[in-house]
Amino acid sequence: MAFDFAKPNPKPLRALIYIYTVFLSIFSLVESRTLGLDSISGPKDSLVYLWPLPSEFTSGNDTLAVDPDLSLAVGGIGGGSAIVSAAFERYKAIIFKQSSWSSKSRLRAKSAYDISKIRIIVHSDNEELQLGVDESYSLMVSRSNDRSIIGEATIEGNTVFGAVRGLETFSQLCAYDYVRKNVQVYKAPWYIRDRPRFAYRGLLLDTSRHYLPITVIKQVIESMSYVKLNVLHWHIIDEESFPLEVPTYPNLWKGAYTKWERYTTEDAYEIVNFAKMRGINVMAEVDVPGHAESWGAGYPDLWPSPSCREPLDVSKNFTFDVIAGILTDMRKIFPFEFFHLGGDEVHTDCWTSTPHVKQWLQNHNMTAKDAYQYFVLRAQEIAISKNWTPVNWEETFNTFPTKLNPRTVVHNWLGGGVCQEAVAKGFRCIFSNQGFWYLDHLDVPWNEVYDAEPLEGINDISAQQLVLGGEVCMWAETADPSNVLQTIWPRAAAAAERLWSKREALSSGNITVTVLPRLQYFRCLLTRRGVPAAPVTNRYARMAPSGTGSCYEQ
Amino acid sequence: MAFDFAKPNPKPLRALIYIYTVFLSIFSLVESRTLGLDSISGPKDSLVYLWPLPSEFTSGNDTLAVDPDLSLAVGGIGGGSAIVSAAFERYKAIIFKQSSWSSKSRLRAKSAYDISKIRIIVHSDNEELQLGVDESYSLMVSRSNDRSIIGEATIEGNTVFGAVRGLETFSQLCAYDYVRKNVQVYKAPWYIRDRPRFAYRGLLLDTSRHYLPITVIKQVIESMSYVKLNVLHWHIIDEESFPLEVPTYPNLWKGAYTKWERYTTEDAYEIVNFAKMRGINVMAEVDVPGHAESWGAGYPDLWPSPSCREPLDVSKNFTFDVIAGILTDMRKIFPFEFFHLGGDEVHTDCWTSTPHVKQWLQNHNMTAKDAYQYFVLRAQEIAISKNWTPVNWEETFNTFPTKLNPRTVVHNWLGGGVCQEAVAKGFRCIFSNQGFWYLDHLDVPWNEVYDAEPLEGINDISAQQLVLGGEVCMWAETADPSNVLQTIWPRAAAAAERLWSKREALSSGNITVTVLPRLQYFRCLLTRRGVPAAPVTNRYARMAPSGTGSCYEQ
Repeated sequence: MAFDFAKPNPKPLRALIYIYTVFLSIFSLVESRTLGLDSISGPKDSLVYLWPLPSEFTSGNDTLAVDPDLSLAVGGIGGGSAIVSAAFERYKAIIFKQSSWSSKSRLRAKSAYDISKIRIIVHSDNEELQLGVDESYSLMVSRSNDRSIIGEATIEGNTVFGAVRGLETFSQLCAYDYVRKNVQVYKAPWYIRDRPRFAYRGLLLDTSRHYLPITVIKQVIESMSYVKLNVLHWHIIDEESFPLEVPTYPNLWKGAYTKWERYTTEDAYEIVNFAKMRGINVMAEVDVPGHAESWGAGYPDLWPSPSCREPLDVSKNFTFDVIAGILTDMRKIFPFEFFHLGGDEVHTDCWTSTPHVKQWLQNHNMTAKDAYQYFVLRAQEIAISKNWTPVNWEETFNTFPTKLNPRTVVHNWLGGGVCQEAVAKGFRCIFSNQGFWYLDHLDVPWNEVYDAEPLEGINDISAQQLVLGGEVCMWAETADPSNVLQTIWPRAAAAAERLWSKREALSSGNITVTVLPRLQYFRCLLTRRGVPAAPVTNRYARMAPSGTGSCYEQ
Repeated sequence: MAFDFAKPNPKPLRALIYIYTVFLSIFSLVESRTLGLDSISGPKDSLVYLWPLPSEFTSGNDTLAVDPDLSLAVGGIGGGSAIVSAAFERYKAIIFKQSSWSSKSRLRAKSAYDISKIRIIVHSDNEELQLGVDESYSLMVSRSNDRSIIGEATIEGNTVFGAVRGLETFSQLCAYDYVRKNVQVYKAPWYIRDRPRFAYRGLLLDTSRHYLPITVIKQVIESMSYVKLNVLHWHIIDEESFPLEVPTYPNLWKGAYTKWERYTTEDAYEIVNFAKMRGINVMAEVDVPGHAESWGAGYPDLWPSPSCREPLDVSKNFTFDVIAGILTDMRKIFPFEFFHLGGDEVHTDCWTSTPHVKQWLQNHNMTAKDAYQYFVLRAQEIAISKNWTPVNWEETFNTFPTKLNPRTVVHNWLGGGVCQEAVAKGFRCIFSNQGFWYLDHLDVPWNEVYDAEPLEGINDISAQQLVLGGEVCMWAETADPSNVLQTIWPRAAAAAERLWSKREALSSGNITVTVLPRLQYFRCLLTRRGVPAAPVTNRYARMAPSGTGSCYEQ
């Protein structure tokens, strides 16, 4: 398993160049060693760390200089996409952050650079972004060679989103060299073939407990793209505030904290589009029937009573009219096939204690638990009627598994073993075990985040396929614009590698040796990109460094 | 003193329009009420808070819609400056962050907007940025009127830097209206005449205890411009690391933590230029003879001995050759007339305990204290020979006040009363009393930062004029890229208003009523601009909010 960055073996690479040429045409499997790392106590000079680890790669011992005027050449029917050109411009700005103003580099002859062009080939012009979209790519970076048809840097993907993933990897191969004062790719040539282990790799943002300005949400999305996460689960609304505009029920956002802590429908469109440009879906959540007190600020009839406000009043058709109205309006904004209906932590006391609801329960011969099931299923029907696949927090599955619509995706959070039970019953599942993947649990160290495995205890391959992936959750009771990014990073990166990279590569060896220095390096990379990622080895997440020192050791 | 935003009196404004027209031509004094605020427990709907408070302004009760296609018209011999056009583009992006993608707004007829053009008039084409550069400006925002020569929004400044300050104020008048879905200026017409109280309004950044990537330094500079701070005091080097490239002594940056935690000379140029575009000077610091252990990583001869490394070896000419080399290289980068030579916390034990230094002291009949003075004065001479004005931490003044070069600027930090003593002896002074303006002192609440007064105890006007201003200091023992911005903000804003606005306006009334809601509003404005400013009323700076809630109340 050990692939030693420090001791390349150049001879097999010649053969690989030939093999790779064939591979580029026929996209056949290239043999390459899987990855581990020799013991490294800190970053080595010429070491390039990639995060998350690609599924297959080989490297050499050449060093290539990258032209600050790097140009883009596209091929394939999808190469001309605006998603590709925009991604190229983004990554060019990232790669040359340091050197773009260096007149020294600029004045050099073109011939001083080994890589002046990146070629991006995309085989499909379908830009629809849905679960399971092909994110695979191949990336080759090698010295140009007149006798070879191989270009200098080439990314090939089946979709534009694969190309975007390849650009991220390419950007991580590029490092600013402070002595040569230009951008270098160390350990070239690189041959990488990569694809994600899981189709669903999410991050939850909660904009109800604290409002996050659009700018901050964009910062989060942009940073997600650095670790190849692909779903922003937008927990827009909760009991504390209702920031989203709903044109059909315009009083709903009276539940916002203030007039300024709101999202217009245009804001939401913008978020969805910004995310799509980075290959990231936005899954909206409307958490019912609990966690919905703020709805009543605009429509008090949604409360069982003014003194008992949650869950939403199950006895009124108006409640379901409002849900249908919200979902109708949201359907225009959120094209992703999944829609999250919440369903967690439903405490039904207000139903059993409010006279007219209690009467309604009696009239319908329902217990409170029956009413909970009735509510969830009726909300599911609304979502399904709008061609959405419903996602629910695990309580719905735990309480009435046989009644749930079989298309339901079960979203685990309470603890371990739930995905195991859900897939055994044929449901699809998303793993978010709060013991490891709730980012507001500040006492969970990076290695526990890293080691949490969505397929734990699930050995049957067809059952494994029902685990769509996982999601880290950034609940916002104590996270706001001032600290949300450092609460997310670097621990979300640990989960992202778990979700992207090969399982074998993740669990080999002592991760303090094989993974920690790479994560520390990646955390420093994030800070260079302006993402305020916290020190990796803090006792509690987002804590300040305890003293002076290098980023690479904190 | 009380100027009530909520109860405008429109009649005097008609007269003011005429007066202002005259004022625009002859730049005469317009009568306007100075500012206080009525009791406001939270932000009001139509209230526009400005931070820092302008010296004079009037407002009305009109609401104006601002065109997302806002254009720039320039006048005066300095209006065509790239500094003006770049600032306009920056602020346009800030003002229309929310609405730029709103097709609804875009499709509206031009006539639906009241302000489609901003006119910027600059009376000088001198773009030199030095201490005391004229930062005054006038700003008028009013409904266009066919019978009036008054334009829609007009900024007039004597220099481009005044125009930049005026654009910041204009941007704060603009607020996104979530119901009308466009940018509005409330309480128009606005007539503002503004200039800073102090010429020197600084922020210290320490890049030795933790390295800050260029991107992060730029984020800090950009955020400084939002509160009209105008000096970045770059404490580049300290005992922990030497990140800066010095071409004359190329081994010095071997003292960097790692090869990646460095600044090239090009990086430093870029920082200086980025700051200048925002009217911000960069004052570099080379702290000698203490706080310099890292120098010896590249040149061990600078240490008294390998086992006793600080202060720099006073006995060798090589030490002063290196200082001269550093300053020669830095002079090409830093055009600001001030250069900080440190001089603080010099513990001379290594001098008296290292045999060859001890011998040198005896040969020169010097005590350790004499040698400290000798070192500081010799370093001052080097700086002065390069046409720099030396700045020193107050210990130099406290220890040998009569020997210091009279041009020396005394930089207070240890406690109160020092500027008082320094100006009494004819020195200029910068106020940074650590009890209030050291941002790493996390237990100092916003109001104590706000109340600290550089002129405290200095009543004579000619003595007051020697107080150049003040500076908040962001020492980085526990601040790194992950938390530096939230340690700086919002408390640096409190000091910035102290340094910019009229003293009378700052001390009137109960600041919990007159200032706190404005600072909370401004903190939220920062978060909308992507600056992760911490909650204002935290027990300790940069702490997470203690629970859910609105930005405007935390």
